[in-house]
Amino acid sequence: MSTSLPQGFLFAACAAGIKASGRPDLALALMPEGATAAVMFTRNQVVAAPVIVGRDHLRASRGRVQALIVNAGNANCATGKAGIEAAKTVCSQLAGELKTDARYIFPSSTGIIGVPLPVTKISAALPSLVVATKAIPETFAAFAGAILTTDTRKKVACESITRRGQTVTLAGVAKGAGMIHPNLATMLVYLFTDVAARPADLHRSLRAAVDESFNNISIDGDTSTNDTVLLLASGKSGLALKSVRSEFERALKNVCRSLASQIVGDGEGAMHVVRLRIEQARTQEQARQIASAIARSPLVKTAWAGADPNWGRMLAAIGYSGVKVNPARVSIYLGPQQICREGAACPFDKNAAHQYMSQPSYEIRVVLGAGRATLDFLSCDLTAEYVHINADYST
Amino acid sequence: MSTSLPQGFLFAACAAGIKASGRPDLALALMPEGATAAVMFTRNQVVAAPVIVGRDHLRASRGRVQALIVNAGNANCATGKAGIEAAKTVCSQLAGELKTDARYIFPSSTGIIGVPLPVTKISAALPSLVVATKAIPETFAAFAGAILTTDTRKKVACESITRRGQTVTLAGVAKGAGMIHPNLATMLVYLFTDVAARPADLHRSLRAAVDESFNNISIDGDTSTNDTVLLLASGKSGLALKSVRSEFERALKNVCRSLASQIVGDGEGAMHVVRLRIEQARTQEQARQIASAIARSPLVKTAWAGADPNWGRMLAAIGYSGVKVNPARVSIYLGPQQICREGAACPFDKNAAHQYMSQPSYEIRVVLGAGRATLDFLSCDLTAEYVHINADYST
Repeated sequence: MSTSLPQGFLFAACAAGIKASGRPDLALALMPEGATAAVMFTRNQVVAAPVIVGRDHLRASRGRVQALIVNAGNANCATGKAGIEAAKTVCSQLAGELKTDARYIFPSSTGIIGVPLPVTKISAALPSLVVATKAIPETFAAFAGAILTTDTRKKVACESITRRGQTVTLAGVAKGAGMIHPNLATMLVYLFTDVAARPADLHRSLRAAVDESFNNISIDGDTSTNDTVLLLASGKSGLALKSVRSEFERALKNVCRSLASQIVGDGEGAMHVVRLRIEQARTQEQARQIASAIARSPLVKTAWAGADPNWGRMLAAIGYSGVKVNPARVSIYLGPQQICREGAACPFDKNAAHQYMSQPSYEIRVVLGAGRATLDFLSCDLTAEYVHINADYST
Repeated sequence: MSTSLPQGFLFAACAAGIKASGRPDLALALMPEGATAAVMFTRNQVVAAPVIVGRDHLRASRGRVQALIVNAGNANCATGKAGIEAAKTVCSQLAGELKTDARYIFPSSTGIIGVPLPVTKISAALPSLVVATKAIPETFAAFAGAILTTDTRKKVACESITRRGQTVTLAGVAKGAGMIHPNLATMLVYLFTDVAARPADLHRSLRAAVDESFNNISIDGDTSTNDTVLLLASGKSGLALKSVRSEFERALKNVCRSLASQIVGDGEGAMHVVRLRIEQARTQEQARQIASAIARSPLVKTAWAGADPNWGRMLAAIGYSGVKVNPARVSIYLGPQQICREGAACPFDKNAAHQYMSQPSYEIRVVLGAGRATLDFLSCDLTAEYVHINADYST
């Protein structure tokens, strides 16, 4: 894809030898004149060292960032005090290269948990990585590639807004294919823009966008220890956020939704992306809870893998979701066809249903008859391939 | 196994043509002089017709039962008012055969959801089924076989207590291999005893036993719509529950634990039974919540399938369990070996760990360092075979 990059950002990536495969595993984004930042982290109580260090740095810098350094292949999580020191060492060394303070460096890691971060490999790669940074689509694409783990493809989305001849650009990259569930699972998302904004304003826009995108997806229901969504704003477009707020927030939501959808589409072993549309819920939160119960049921997800219109399993998941429902008011639709009416079977064309569910992506609509809230939630099926991918990741 | 049966019960089973395979699918237990009953049902809000009818009958009969009729191959769930009528028809017809009132008949169903119960097939089979009932181990074993669905083997457990020359016998059968999680998932358990007891006393004993057995197992985290644990006491031993309460409750727990363990051991596609021992939790309930989060994580369960000592995934599941924990105090042991110390990696013999996890059953011990509660919880791995079994169950 042709990517138009926001001004004020340089990118580079390389293979530092962290991944056993020898594939690129170290990515750097530089903001020579700095950027303001907003960030959202995992809600898991077990958090990785870079999450702790990144949070501290943002606090110390009052939301200013000059470089983002990401490694894949090692999560630097459950690595104790040595892990914190390792993350700090990487930041200090990069700060030295850039002649700035370590608090302006934001670190991220993804990969296996509980293995010491190979700091010397990262240290050895940093100087030439800094030199290699460029503001061109090729290095941006290389950045998007080096942050991947079990992903099979890069995830990139861009939007731009033009206002009185000036253009604000927003470019996002994401990583994540397993351990994905609401509240940010193994997922790294970096959003780069040249709008000018204070951290608090950026944060408000980011939270709204995350709530309607990354918090509405589930691959396997696991919540990871490293998840991070970071929005960096260089200000180089010359346009202030407040002058383009509504357009900017729409663009941000679009980018986040596109990346969220790309993450689910690349779900480990996934053959089908399912858009769960929950209608007539009492509240958005209840709709999310019901979607989440359906999306994490192994019985539902294996039925999806077999393109099997087994609505009974979905109804059972709704029943144990924890949300009070009247089963006799629940209807379920598979695209144009109703497959469950008022909590019971209704006649439908099983062949057509099977055909419909054989598509790479499709929609299931659950109508609760309880209220007026609607929610779209993306998930995917659970295949034998998922098991193969995850049964021997660390060995 | 040689089964000693409690007095006052007759058993029979046959193939009524409900299962497409033609295997036995209709089971009957008769108590010619009646029995008192205690029952625990699924907590799913979507409940099957036989659960509704069974509950009503027990209320109307004040806990007295004369016959238990179970069909496999069809859950009679999400079948609307017609499903309720179908369950009532089966009960009425059986009551007619037995010259009693329908409220003394307890119905159960298990199998696919949302398909009308084939009442005429059951009706046609009932008269000869009643005639065939016998109080011998062979018909009891046939009963245990006819209630199965995706199970690969029968689940039976017996205990007896002798007191001043009189013997109380307890015989239990169970069914369940998928949709198993705390609070009773697709699981049918019938416990037959000849102790003499009032329904309320039976219920107290049953609840305690279920809490330490069936509520501490998980195969796939799904909670079904039909689960039932029914305890029937004929009183024919001549011994009153209150005269043997502690021995009886111990025997009941043993039978329930044995059946629970057999259910997990027969988990759909399961290759390994894992006993999760949670130690130093603040409360039993928190221990169960943590065990449950570990036991339903697809990433943990696929690592178990690969005999992969990936303790990081377990630590991550503990972190999102909803229970407040201090990760720096968590240790994890694989049998004799410690594999995680104070929330971080520690050196261990990976080969020995892999060997240990290659056994058909083994123990993982999680020490939380938070309190004094201990819990044993049984679960199993998630294999590609589980996906195959469930990807085409209804089609």
